[in-house]
Order: sequence, then C-alpha cells, then structure tokens
Amino acid sequence: MSIIHARIEGLRKKMAQAGIAADIIPQSDPHQSEYLAAHWQVRKWLSGFTGSAGTLVVTADRALLWTDSRYFLQAAQELEGSDIELMKDGLPETPSIEAWLCKELPAGATVGVDGMVYSATALKQLATALAANDIALDADFAPMAELWNSRPELPGDAIFIHEEKYAGESAQSKIARILAAAKVAKADSVFISALDEIAWLLNIRSSDVNCNPVATAYLYLNPTKSVLFTDPAKVDAKVAKYLAAAGVEVAPYGDVSRFLALNAKTDTIYVEPAKTAATLVEVIGSRAVTGGSLTALPKAVKNLTQIAGVRKAMARDGVALVKLFMEVERRLAEGIRLTELDMAALGTKYRAEGDLYVDDSFEMIAGYGPHGAIVHYSATEESSSDIHPTGLLLVDSGAQYLDGTTDITRTVALGTPTAQERADFTLVMKGHIAIATAVFPQGTRGDQLDGMARIALWKHGLNYLHGTGHGVGHFLNVHEGPQSIRLNHVNVALQPGMITSNEPGLYRAGVHGIRCENLVLCVPSSLSNKEFGQFYAFEPLTMFPFDINLFDLTLMSDEEIEWVNNYHDTVRATLLPLLATDDQREWLTRKTAHLCR
Amino acid sequence: MSIIHARIEGLRKKMAQAGIAADIIPQSDPHQSEYLAAHWQVRKWLSGFTGSAGTLVVTADRALLWTDSRYFLQAAQELEGSDIELMKDGLPETPSIEAWLCKELPAGATVGVDGMVYSATALKQLATALAANDIALDADFAPMAELWNSRPELPGDAIFIHEEKYAGESAQSKIARILAAAKVAKADSVFISALDEIAWLLNIRSSDVNCNPVATAYLYLNPTKSVLFTDPAKVDAKVAKYLAAAGVEVAPYGDVSRFLALNAKTDTIYVEPAKTAATLVEVIGSRAVTGGSLTALPKAVKNLTQIAGVRKAMARDGVALVKLFMEVERRLAEGIRLTELDMAALGTKYRAEGDLYVDDSFEMIAGYGPHGAIVHYSATEESSSDIHPTGLLLVDSGAQYLDGTTDITRTVALGTPTAQERADFTLVMKGHIAIATAVFPQGTRGDQLDGMARIALWKHGLNYLHGTGHGVGHFLNVHEGPQSIRLNHVNVALQPGMITSNEPGLYRAGVHGIRCENLVLCVPSSLSNKEFGQFYAFEPLTMFPFDINLFDLTLMSDEEIEWVNNYHDTVRATLLPLLATDDQREWLTRKTAHLCR
Repeated sequence: MSIIHARIEGLRKKMAQAGIAADIIPQSDPHQSEYLAAHWQVRKWLSGFTGSAGTLVVTADRALLWTDSRYFLQAAQELEGSDIELMKDGLPETPSIEAWLCKELPAGATVGVDGMVYSATALKQLATALAANDIALDADFAPMAELWNSRPELPGDAIFIHEEKYAGESAQSKIARILAAAKVAKADSVFISALDEIAWLLNIRSSDVNCNPVATAYLYLNPTKSVLFTDPAKVDAKVAKYLAAAGVEVAPYGDVSRFLALNAKTDTIYVEPAKTAATLVEVIGSRAVTGGSLTALPKAVKNLTQIAGVRKAMARDGVALVKLFMEVERRLAEGIRLTELDMAALGTKYRAEGDLYVDDSFEMIAGYGPHGAIVHYSATEESSSDIHPTGLLLVDSGAQYLDGTTDITRTVALGTPTAQERADFTLVMKGHIAIATAVFPQGTRGDQLDGMARIALWKHGLNYLHGTGHGVGHFLNVHEGPQSIRLNHVNVALQPGMITSNEPGLYRAGVHGIRCENLVLCVPSSLSNKEFGQFYAFEPLTMFPFDINLFDLTLMSDEEIEWVNNYHDTVRATLLPLLATDDQREWLTRKTAHLCR
Repeated sequence: MSIIHARIEGLRKKMAQAGIAADIIPQSDPHQSEYLAAHWQVRKWLSGFTGSAGTLVVTADRALLWTDSRYFLQAAQELEGSDIELMKDGLPETPSIEAWLCKELPAGATVGVDGMVYSATALKQLATALAANDIALDADFAPMAELWNSRPELPGDAIFIHEEKYAGESAQSKIARILAAAKVAKADSVFISALDEIAWLLNIRSSDVNCNPVATAYLYLNPTKSVLFTDPAKVDAKVAKYLAAAGVEVAPYGDVSRFLALNAKTDTIYVEPAKTAATLVEVIGSRAVTGGSLTALPKAVKNLTQIAGVRKAMARDGVALVKLFMEVERRLAEGIRLTELDMAALGTKYRAEGDLYVDDSFEMIAGYGPHGAIVHYSATEESSSDIHPTGLLLVDSGAQYLDGTTDITRTVALGTPTAQERADFTLVMKGHIAIATAVFPQGTRGDQLDGMARIALWKHGLNYLHGTGHGVGHFLNVHEGPQSIRLNHVNVALQPGMITSNEPGLYRAGVHGIRCENLVLCVPSSLSNKEFGQFYAFEPLTMFPFDINLFDLTLMSDEEIEWVNNYHDTVRATLLPLLATDDQREWLTRKTAHLCR
C-alpha cells in the first residue's frame, strides 16, 4: 500500500467514525489566500498532486481529484498508482463536485468539510446544492489535526513594520477609515481574515507565504480595543509596542473563535462572507453585518508616497532587467548554456542587487518557444528547456521591494523573428497600447476596457483566455482586487491611484506564447471638462523596453508607433542615469531606438 | 379647487378609509410595458403630468412627483398650481421614494400600491425597504376603478394574424420550444404577461399601444391546454380558429387571476417575476417556478425568413428616407417653411407609400440645432422649430412593416458645416464604425463592445449618456431585450440572428445633437477557426447614406474611410433599383459618393 493509499485509508476511518459519506478537501486556508503556506497544503499531502488548483473528494470506496486544464497532464502523472481518479474540470462531460455528489450519494447521506477552509459564501452554495438532493452537510469535519502527524507548523516568521515612509499612511489612520466605513454600515467592529488586508491595515509584513509578504493572522477592529490574532512568537517587543500604539493587542492565533463567540454577544461585527471562514461567520452568528470588503478599495487606491515609491522600485527593476537580458544575449552569443531555470536564478540575482529588494513577487515564468504558450508555465528540473538563439522567449517576473511590488512580462525574439512572430507580437502590442492610451469617464469599470485590448486580435480570429489586468499590491500580493480588466463583469470602477497590470497575450499551442505586460497607474486626465465631467487615463509605471525587432509597422497606426517611441524615450531617460556601465547604456540606447516606417 | 386637487382629494378619502398613509402610483401596467395604453395612464390622470416617466406619491397632506432630468422643465410647468411637489430624480439631494417614505412616515404606517402594476420583483424590493423601517405594505390598494369615472376602456382593437410567411415559424413550433424550456426548468406550464412576447409566440398582432403592434393579453401555456386572456371582442372567428389550431383557447382578460388560482393547485407554473404583476405571482404562490424570460432570447434571435423580410423592409425604408431628405432640401432651397413637426408628418407620409407599411415604430425625433441635444426630444406644437438651411438636423425615426421594424438616425448638415460640427460628427461615426467592424468571440456581451463605440469621443473628453444599442423586434416593439450594447452590465451574449441598434451620439447642450444609427445583424464571422473558436461580426441592415459633408477625413483611418465607402456602395446598389425617378437616382448617387483624402 502506497503512502497515499495509507493516508486516504486513514481519512476513511475517520469518515466512518463520524458518519461522513464523502469528504471534500479544497486547496484553501482560513484566509481564502491565493497561495498557501505549507501548513494548509492538506490536499497536496492527501493526494500527492502538487498543482496550485484542485479539489479532492474521498468517499468510502472512491477518491477523485478535480483540476483544470492547466494541470491535466501533471495530475495524471502525479496521481498514477494512487487510485485517485482525475476529474477534468471544464470538459463538458465532467460533472461539478456538487452534481457528482448528488448523483453518487444516497439521500440522507452526509458530506463533511472543514468549515475553516470554506468561505461562508462557498459553504452556503454547497449546502444549498446538496440540500436540494436531501444530502446533509457537516461543516465541522476536520480530522487533519489527528491524521497528519508531521504536518508543518503554522509559519513562524517574524512580523516587521512596513515603515510609514514607504506606506504613506499610519495604521491608526487606516483603522480609523475602516471603522468609519463600518459605522456607516451600522457595525461596531470589523473582523478581517484576508492576510493582505491585515498587512496593509497595520503596516506590517512577514514572509509566511512564498513571494507574498504577509503574516498569518486575523484582525478584529474596534474603536476601543483591536486585536491581532497571530502566533505571539512572531511579534517581538518592538512590533508589540508599535501595535499597542496603534490600539492593537496581540492574542494567540487559536483564540479567535472563542473571542468572536464572546464578543458576538455585545457587538455587531462587519464581516466579508466571501473571504471569511464559514466556521467563524457561524460563530459571529446573527450579529454579523455582511458585505463586501471595506478594506479592498482603500488598499487598492495608492497614496502619493506609495506611488513615488513604486516609481523608484520600477526604475531599479528596469536596471535588473537590463542586466538579465544583456546576460541572456551574451550567453546565447557566446554559446554558453542557458535554461529556463537559469533565467529565474539570474532574475532573482540581479533584482537582489538593487536597493530595498526583499523577495521575488512570484516565481518567474520563463517560457521558451512552445513553453511560452502554456499560460501558467513554471519550469521544473524536468521541463526546463535549453534556450537557443532562435524563436520567442516569454519572461514574466517581478519583485517585492520595500517601496513597491513589480510585475512585468516581456516577449523577445532570440533570433531573426519570422513574419508570423512579428504579426502576432504586434497584434498583442496593439491591445497593450489601446489600454495604455485609453481615456475613460469616471465610473468606468475594467470590463468595459477589456475588449479594447482584444479587438485587434479578434479581427484576426485570435484571442487570449486570461484577464487583461489585475490589481497589484504595494509591497504586498502581486494579485489584489477589487479592480481588474477582464472579460467577466466586475462591478468596480477604476479610480486614480489604482495600479493595474496591462497584459494582453496570444498563445499558439506548440508554437509560441506572447504576453506584453506593464503595470499602469490610473490618473486624472487633462481632458476632464465641465460639460462631460471627469476623465481618467493610465500612465505606465514599468520601465523596460519592448523588443523593437518584433514590431510589424505595417499593422500599426502612426499613433501606435508614436506611443512606443514616447514610452521608449521615457524608459531611456529613466534608466540611463541608473546604469553603471557604458555597455549597459549603449545596450539600452540601442533597445529604445525609435520605430520608423 | 382644480380638477387635479379634486382627484387627489378623492384618492385621499379612499386612502383614509383603507388606512393607507401613502399611495404610490407608478407609470406602469400589468404587463410592465414601456409604453402604456390610455387605460393605464393613472399617474397622468391623477397628477396632470404627461411625461413618459415619473411616479406619484400621495400622503394625507402632501403629493409629490418623482421624475428624471428629461422632464424637470415640463413637469414644473404641468404641475404648476396643483400643489404637487416636484422631486428631481438623480440629483444628489433627492431621496429615493423608499427613503422619503421611511423618513416621513411613522413606524407602523401602511403604504398602499396596486400590486397589478408592480412587478413581483419591484414589490419585493419595496416591501423590504419599507419593512426595515417598520412600515407595512398593502399591495391590494387599487381604488382607481371607483375613482376614475371616465377611465378609457382597455384597448379593443382587433387582433390579426402575423402570417408565417413573415414570421418564419409557426405558433405551434414556438409554443413547443417554450414548453420544452419550461420542462427543463421543471415547470408544467408557463405564464407570460409581456405583450411583445405573447405577440411573438402566437404570431398575432394588434394596435393596442401607439407604435407597438401588440394586443393587451396574458398567455398561459400548457402542453394540453393553453389560454389567451384578452377581450374576446378583439378575437374574430378567423383568429379564434387560428388560435384553436395552435392549441390556444380564448378567455376574458379579467379571468386570469381566478384561472391561475385554480391551476396553481395542480400545476407548476414558470413565471418571470420581473415582468409579471406581483398580485398574479402571489396568486400562483408556492407552485411558481421563477426565472428569467424563456421567450426573450428565442424572440431576439431572428430566423432566416425574418431576416430576409427585414432586409426588404430596410430597402423600402431607405426609399422613403430618400424622398424625405430630398423634400427637406427642396423646401430649404425654395424657402418653403419647414418645421420639426412637418418632418414627422412627411416621414410618415413617405413611409406609408411603401409596401407592407403598418405604422411608425415610434414618434419621429426631429431635433434641429439645440433641440438635437435633447436626447428624448419630441417636438410639440409649442416647441416645434422652423428649420433653416444652416446647422445640424438630427432625425431619428422608424416604421412597422409586416416584414420588419426599422429604426434609423441620421444627422445632416443643412448648410456648410463648421469644423466643430464635422469633428463632432466624425468622432461619433468612428464609434459607429468601431461597432460595425467589430469581430468578437462567441460569448461576448454587448457591454464588452460598448466602450469601443465611445473611445474616440472619450479621447476628446466627450461622451454620451445613453446606451449604444438596443435589441429591435420583428414587426414588434422597437425596443426589446435581452441583448443590448451599453455601459451597464447585461449578462446576455450576442448571438447570430440578433438585431441590435448601433447608435453612438454626442450632445452639446444648447448647440447641437449628433446620433448615427444603423440596425445591425449579428452574423458568424469567416475568421472562426479551430484553435481560437467561433467568432461573430455585425452586418448593417439599415440602408441610407450618412452625410458625406460631415466627415473630417483628417480624424479617420484609411480603414474607417473604406468602411464608409463600402457601406455607401451597398446602399447605392440596394436602393437605386427601387427609386422611381432620375432625380432620386441622381440624388442618391451624389449622396453616396466616395470619401477620399
């Protein structure tokens, strides 16, 4: 019996004891995080599947893993011999988990989940779907504490203060703003589980999640007494004093439920059910005031200090990329072996040479040739390609600096580009430029702009299936809300101060992938006027040239060419003074030469 | 005491008898129609205000009318001396009706409404808002039957059959489709109140609402017995026989409630709460299966017969417009007086000369100069301007033909256009062309395209506040759903066969208004391919030239100029064979001359 078999059998014993017919194990934590600390990798431990998305379902005699098309191949390999069946999410023949359970389980059966890793919103949807088929839900089925002997501890990394000279606003001020919003919503207090919201609110950071400088914690805000629930070992005297000055006590992470149970007797507590564990929302009970996050929007709108910091971080990031791409060219020219994994190591090395560097903001995606067409490609020891002086290389990377977070994608031709490579690249850039040059009235949502990034591709029967842009934190998670630029409707207006990515792409399976990404800042437009109101526009923050060899000028308007040339002028003016060598300056000058017909 | 005072006092007596503290009288009917038959003009009768949008609220000592900015001036005039207070909807200081009631009425008070003219959805929202302030709602307060002595009868116009040679699908086939959809939703029957849905489903028409060829009725569909509730006097023997052959009995309009009450005991009935009277949904009770309209989408996707018919109707409409605009030019050249109201009469006259003409599809909007900037302008005897050979004239008009419904807006320069007139017009046309030339993947919603119609204006700090496009019926209401092209999110994908307007505009208050409108047909695009899937595009249906004198070619791309020239080639080729005189042919040839730099 393999170790996976043994783990699942162990779970089945617990299920049998508790009268659970099926257990659902999602990829999730009590904070609804996008990326999980090792402690929460329950699904990975139970199934052996290491992908970042997937849900395991275990019944008395079957085990099934639902995952999406990114992971069909990897999951099939990793599940081999485990007797766990792969359920290919998104294929028409694949039922949803709810539908499968309703079909397979008899009426009267009970499904178990751990309500700490289900949001209240998700649990409610699940319960409703199951109840329609007379299947009960036990949301207190949490056997992992007993089953997983060598379970990694909760992250114990120290919490440090993100200084106000970078954050631009004190924790006191932010807390006051959120409590004022809660008051409008008729709530006395606010309970927050989202780790990036807590980090932003208190101006604290840690390194609990790879590339995400957050601390594992819950936060309870109240005008007279706020409490941060976290491992006290993470809080040294300096931080404790700092938090106390902001009116925040520290209590053990595990005390949160008891605390809420007590306070819910006297307190109306604002809580976001889509981001808060079902178990905790249940504890708050009828005194919960539910709604969207009060923190997400204030966090997304950056202040002048943050914006000034990001600009400096972007300049340092551009310098690192000059070094990286020069090194790529040198190795290819000199015939020195270069792999996709080498790219990641080099990127980290050059970024770390810059001031205020803390970490990468995500693991670099360096996709050479056909690998570039795999949107969420991440090179492994097995997959990592050698890179040759021909074809396209897609590089998506970023860093966490104390003064800002970066995220940039460039696609470069390593040899003489083909006509198709140039046409494909240019159509993607037309979309990028359409967003970069957009002007739009107050109230415009990202989904209203999304089509502009795609229409040049659409007119050639092409498309990309990911969003065009996501919000970006400030020395925080590289993906944040509430705004985005995407196909799906998101009811959030773009506002000055928001930082969003602009990253259209094109992926030809087995051929190449192209993505062109800058971060852009929403700013008021000088076109604002009395009769038609306030207009906004975007300003590029990212400072690094696009590959001028890849533009097909016959596909571009004069205005589009002018935008590229102006952008490259700005990049050159910004980076030149920061470059250390003549070689670097010469390289950048060459790479930012004007396009002309 | 004026007649309005007397009517409101009469209402107050009924309110006092029934213990009603406030009565809300909306502009509505039991079918949630956009335009109302005279019988349902209760708010107009009670208040004296004749605008198409507005809600009256009457309490024991106050009466208030909420209406939007289109009607601020007109309402102030019409309400003068009535003691009815004007509440300017949309201004920041104006509370919503619910907020006003909650503030003014004591806890425990009762608000009365007639649940037959409130949709179930709207009533629920109202009840929830009031209940939060301990105000009760009596949805059976309908005193008009006793108060309004000379109330116009329900429309008694005859129902006639819309022949299958125009409709392209039998009533039987449509009924079967809708009942099949109901079965999927686990409903035995379907209850429909929307008049255009009933007309489409049964291939019947009438003339109960000005410009909308519908019959006042409810429809109950059931596999064994369907019933049309309408005034039996509207149904002659031929129509009765036709309906019987389609499995549809006729019952009196007033019988609907009793019938539903009986059938709701044995029947699950599909009903759309947003389009069905609250009173009737209440009658159906717990056996109602609620959801979006099952009929709206099938009705919106036109079949080949309908599309062929619309093309023919568009050609005849174009011929009528050639006559209209030639007559405008002749009168201006010869100094013969021409007013906005004359335009409307001439439009109707020339359209009526064409085959299969039944009615106009709405009252022509002919806005000369500053009047063009009033989006919902409708000339009256008092407002109607004389038209002179200078400035811009906006003409929005359409007709009901047996083979299709038209809706076209053209903006023409009556003299030599100014640079601003040309620039404004060209920016609007750039938006029109962006929609006309859009290619988009299956699943794209209208709100994803809307920005493309606006971006050229936005980049000049300009905008328009109405939608870019609405669905259009087939010999039916000129506004229909479910699709649209607009700023607001509408979760409906565009599909081949849908007919939608493409009508960006620009309105400079006190100066001029510009709108450029064609109807466009969604069609599959030849760019569809295996890797990126199915793409769709639009094809213009409307056949009449845009004013070539108004284009500023310096603002246009070569592709945009080419689109105009190609469109004008098609217009010329379509209309020339249908024109009767050399003058007309010469005029059209001149008006469709190519733009060239």
